[in-house]
Amino acid sequence: MEPTKKPLHIIKIGGDILDNKDRLNAFIEEFSLLKEAKILVHGGGKMASELSTKLGLEVEMHEGRRITSKEQLEVVCMVYAGLANKKLISSMQAKSIDALGLSGADLNLIKAEKRAVKKIDHGFAGDIVQVNSDRIKELLALSACPVFCAITHDQKGQLLNTNADTIASSLAVAMSTYFEVSLKFVFTHEGVLKDIHSSNAIFEEINSTDFVQLKKDGVLTQGIIPKLTNAFDALEKKVQEVRIGSSAIINHDKGTKVCL
Amino acid sequence: MEPTKKPLHIIKIGGDILDNKDRLNAFIEEFSLLKEAKILVHGGGKMASELSTKLGLEVEMHEGRRITSKEQLEVVCMVYAGLANKKLISSMQAKSIDALGLSGADLNLIKAEKRAVKKIDHGFAGDIVQVNSDRIKELLALSACPVFCAITHDQKGQLLNTNADTIASSLAVAMSTYFEVSLKFVFTHEGVLKDIHSSNAIFEEINSTDFVQLKKDGVLTQGIIPKLTNAFDALEKKVQEVRIGSSAIINHDKGTKVCL
Repeated sequence: MEPTKKPLHIIKIGGDILDNKDRLNAFIEEFSLLKEAKILVHGGGKMASELSTKLGLEVEMHEGRRITSKEQLEVVCMVYAGLANKKLISSMQAKSIDALGLSGADLNLIKAEKRAVKKIDHGFAGDIVQVNSDRIKELLALSACPVFCAITHDQKGQLLNTNADTIASSLAVAMSTYFEVSLKFVFTHEGVLKDIHSSNAIFEEINSTDFVQLKKDGVLTQGIIPKLTNAFDALEKKVQEVRIGSSAIINHDKGTKVCL
Repeated sequence: MEPTKKPLHIIKIGGDILDNKDRLNAFIEEFSLLKEAKILVHGGGKMASELSTKLGLEVEMHEGRRITSKEQLEVVCMVYAGLANKKLISSMQAKSIDALGLSGADLNLIKAEKRAVKKIDHGFAGDIVQVNSDRIKELLALSACPVFCAITHDQKGQLLNTNADTIASSLAVAMSTYFEVSLKFVFTHEGVLKDIHSSNAIFEEINSTDFVQLKKDGVLTQGIIPKLTNAFDALEKKVQEVRIGSSAIINHDKGTKVCL
């Protein structure tokens, strides 16, 4: 019999949590209550777009994904790895969470490759090819709380912009070798909305059959589809639990539970 | 008898190395040859000033130190911890150096306090109060190469801008408890110049008596005085060796040797 695996929480927060001081404090409060091993992954797209505007750079998106020019790569490195990550780390340390800010380049933790140019040239966007789960396990063994921003590298000296939801689910899949992983996507809504024009009602559970139908019926927004796709992928690859919702889902069985 | 301590190299590079691709590659090449435990500390002031200009922010300096307003703190966080640090990490990983980018906030490695306002208000400038040498030792035990940018925190949620030379010498002093530390300040010149208007001749050695006299005679520039002050402070506090010079000093007894 396999020995029982220890729990590991992987939480992803979006820019909508980072942007707002009260929401961020509420999140950190909930996150600090998790006593087991934990990893945080964060975005910061809105902050990056704000800096781009200040610098007079155009922000180009395709299906919700940023087209990462050389200049945009510098912007996301500055905002994700610099401003957003370090603000988070100092706020978490103030709440006695022993946070360690990371990109995929640090300790070669997440290796990616530049997305091939097909119909669309995404620029310096990276698709994950390898997660160094042994190294991450070593950091967790030091009782550190790794905090990943959405930057990876190709191990040949090129930094790459990688979607934070995908980083969270790739980490969850890779760490499932060693841990019983719970993956949670935290954003401003209580869960996946039944009606995108109202935040009153959420789905308590969505399975893969529902997902196909809901996409067909146009019920789901552009923003939630990649999260759910990542969620199903993670569940198929042995991640124990996936939930989507507000900070309340961190310590409670709330929000939308994603099931195969 | 005390057991023999293992060697630890602490190297500080300035913005003049980071700015130039050839100089940076030459530095990384030399640095990669160091087989013992090693730590890198980097500045990035020139890059920060460039970003400030692009954003229309005024850069205010006092005796070579940046006055760190709220906006300037965001700029240095973005440039030091984001752009400069991550570019360095990815370049080092490409040369098989297992680099880990850090600020003083990460793992609470360097705690500082906001500089008291006296004649001058330095804004969000931090003076170091504690280096978490045990934690750094744990990272070195993982064969990681810590790469520090010039950002610290006060452990109450405030990030602070801290001089990179001072970070390097504080790390050197703190790590001397566990290691025989060699501290090297790497910049574009071969060593401390005998004449600031010519890079032909350098001092092979400077002791504390020379230092007092050279300052009196106006031989030393504003830029080199803080480096030497930090160097003497480190030597007084049991750091084994201090050198100042180009990348050549990393693996050779070149440049200017600082002695008590």
